[in-house]
Amino acid sequence: MIEPLSYDKETGTLYVLDQTLLPHEERYIAVNTLDELIEAIKALRVRGAPLLGLAGAYGLLFAVLESEKSPDFWEELQKRVDLLVNARPTAVNLKKEVDSILQDIPMTAEPYEVAAMVYEKVLSLENRLKNDDLSLASHGADLLKGKRRILTICNTGTLATGGIGTALGVIKVKHARDDLDVAYLCETRPVLQGARLSAWELIKENVPHYIITDNTAPYLMSLGKVDAVVVGADRVAKNGDTANKVGTLMLAIAAKHYAIDFYVAAPTSSFDMTIADGQAIVIEQRDPEEVLQIRGVRIAPEGSPALNYAFDVTPASLIDGYITEQGILKAPFAEVKKVGR
Amino acid sequence: MIEPLSYDKETGTLYVLDQTLLPHEERYIAVNTLDELIEAIKALRVRGAPLLGLAGAYGLLFAVLESEKSPDFWEELQKRVDLLVNARPTAVNLKKEVDSILQDIPMTAEPYEVAAMVYEKVLSLENRLKNDDLSLASHGADLLKGKRRILTICNTGTLATGGIGTALGVIKVKHARDDLDVAYLCETRPVLQGARLSAWELIKENVPHYIITDNTAPYLMSLGKVDAVVVGADRVAKNGDTANKVGTLMLAIAAKHYAIDFYVAAPTSSFDMTIADGQAIVIEQRDPEEVLQIRGVRIAPEGSPALNYAFDVTPASLIDGYITEQGILKAPFAEVKKVGR
Repeated sequence: MIEPLSYDKETGTLYVLDQTLLPHEERYIAVNTLDELIEAIKALRVRGAPLLGLAGAYGLLFAVLESEKSPDFWEELQKRVDLLVNARPTAVNLKKEVDSILQDIPMTAEPYEVAAMVYEKVLSLENRLKNDDLSLASHGADLLKGKRRILTICNTGTLATGGIGTALGVIKVKHARDDLDVAYLCETRPVLQGARLSAWELIKENVPHYIITDNTAPYLMSLGKVDAVVVGADRVAKNGDTANKVGTLMLAIAAKHYAIDFYVAAPTSSFDMTIADGQAIVIEQRDPEEVLQIRGVRIAPEGSPALNYAFDVTPASLIDGYITEQGILKAPFAEVKKVGR
Repeated sequence: MIEPLSYDKETGTLYVLDQTLLPHEERYIAVNTLDELIEAIKALRVRGAPLLGLAGAYGLLFAVLESEKSPDFWEELQKRVDLLVNARPTAVNLKKEVDSILQDIPMTAEPYEVAAMVYEKVLSLENRLKNDDLSLASHGADLLKGKRRILTICNTGTLATGGIGTALGVIKVKHARDDLDVAYLCETRPVLQGARLSAWELIKENVPHYIITDNTAPYLMSLGKVDAVVVGADRVAKNGDTANKVGTLMLAIAAKHYAIDFYVAAPTSSFDMTIADGQAIVIEQRDPEEVLQIRGVRIAPEGSPALNYAFDVTPASLIDGYITEQGILKAPFAEVKKVGR
């Protein structure tokens, strides 16, 4: 079983699987302080929106424990929380989960009580993430019954969520139900989360798969070798437009061209009803060096610039449905019920 | 000016730009014997279908010169020609150009006369390749006048043809005519001919460009940043279906989706009227290690298999036209005139 984060309550140590070393080395780093956790977050040793939320929750626990002895507990705690949520400012889940836990803690509580309450909340978050993944993956596997060759992109597995995963979770549940021939994993340039992380998970769990270059996916579809495409989502707008790893749009256009099912698998926490449509989603451009180098090896001549859009936006018109922990949704959404909080 | 092959008649040395070292190092190797040339061909130091034809012609010249002193000139020559054309059996241009030259040499000629005749033929082939490229690129630039942002894939430039190039030649001529804002170069996984070779050519010739990951191309189109797509061809069937570097089909589907011009740029020598359609084109699967490693760095876990289709087939229905040295053609082709031979 894969455990990207694992907490030992006796010693107060959080073991963090260093994802930057995958797939070549499986090394856990022992995190005993908030500073060490912040370093792990900043260095991308832990990644994936839901998993960063959980990491943030553990960070809050460290912050509470480290503030306990301070004469002004709440002030000290707030200072540490600020450091924590600024470790990766664009990772909305980190701040969201920290805020959500803090908001339920009465200011009248004693520090030792706060620590106990936060720990309960962390465990409950961890359970909720795992249960939501299982519900989502199970709904997805029901939906795609009989579709035995599934193509996906990026890493949407345990390494991203702490649970069974979203799109990759659907693939794992299908495999467990003996309803999968093969998963095609787009390598996912530039950062190669498919080839490095999803392949590593599927090797660990004995799920049959092939790694392909991203540009091969439409050709595989043209050969009739793909039964359905399932991808994750960074953010889903109210009309169903979906921001996700760059390459998702490519898959959606090709799937539409060949009349292949194309589904987004994402927890309802990724649905943002305050965003009307994809036009309102700003796509971050990241360091061009991610394109110009691969795992430290330069591939381009000196002086050649690159564009590095980390994400793209897929219009709802290309998406057949949304696999969530609440079931299969269709766009546009009137309202997405928030449950489990 | 880029010279992938350059012959010094005084010394009989062929200088071969070692393309395996690009873009990091620009090193010519001095080739003085047929054996040395065969090594350079086998090691992919020289590549690109038309350029391999020219390399074959120079190889024939070496073969003739090395057979001159033999008591049985023609038998000795045939032995060497066999070695030469088997250096890369799948490179049809190599054998084609060697055969085409040999077929015009009378068996009654003296060895020294044969050497002179072959040398003339090599020069004439070199000129023809360069002139055909110029005609093709010029037709393409006329066709795409005013379309200032051109997207392409793979390397179809001087490094592939010895001339100005085909699809990349169109981009260069548009730049020379001050009719280009930017070329988008798909990096072209797995072997990265776009990021390594096309970018190197455009840096050398000061043509503005961006390298992008292949999966970014459809997103750029969705943003309205691409005016036309121009790609090369490995083989064009009679109905217009086109085999080219994997990723070409992805570009064609996305271009159709966004109503963006999509053209194939290829010399008529790449049109094979004996192939009815794309169904008849067998796509070579290459070593999965090309996908699993990038420039020697492993990106995937041990045990994960990969699929490595080197090429894909784009149906004629997605192609707006064919830019050739004879002008712009439309599929299906009644007949393609062979000229200049």
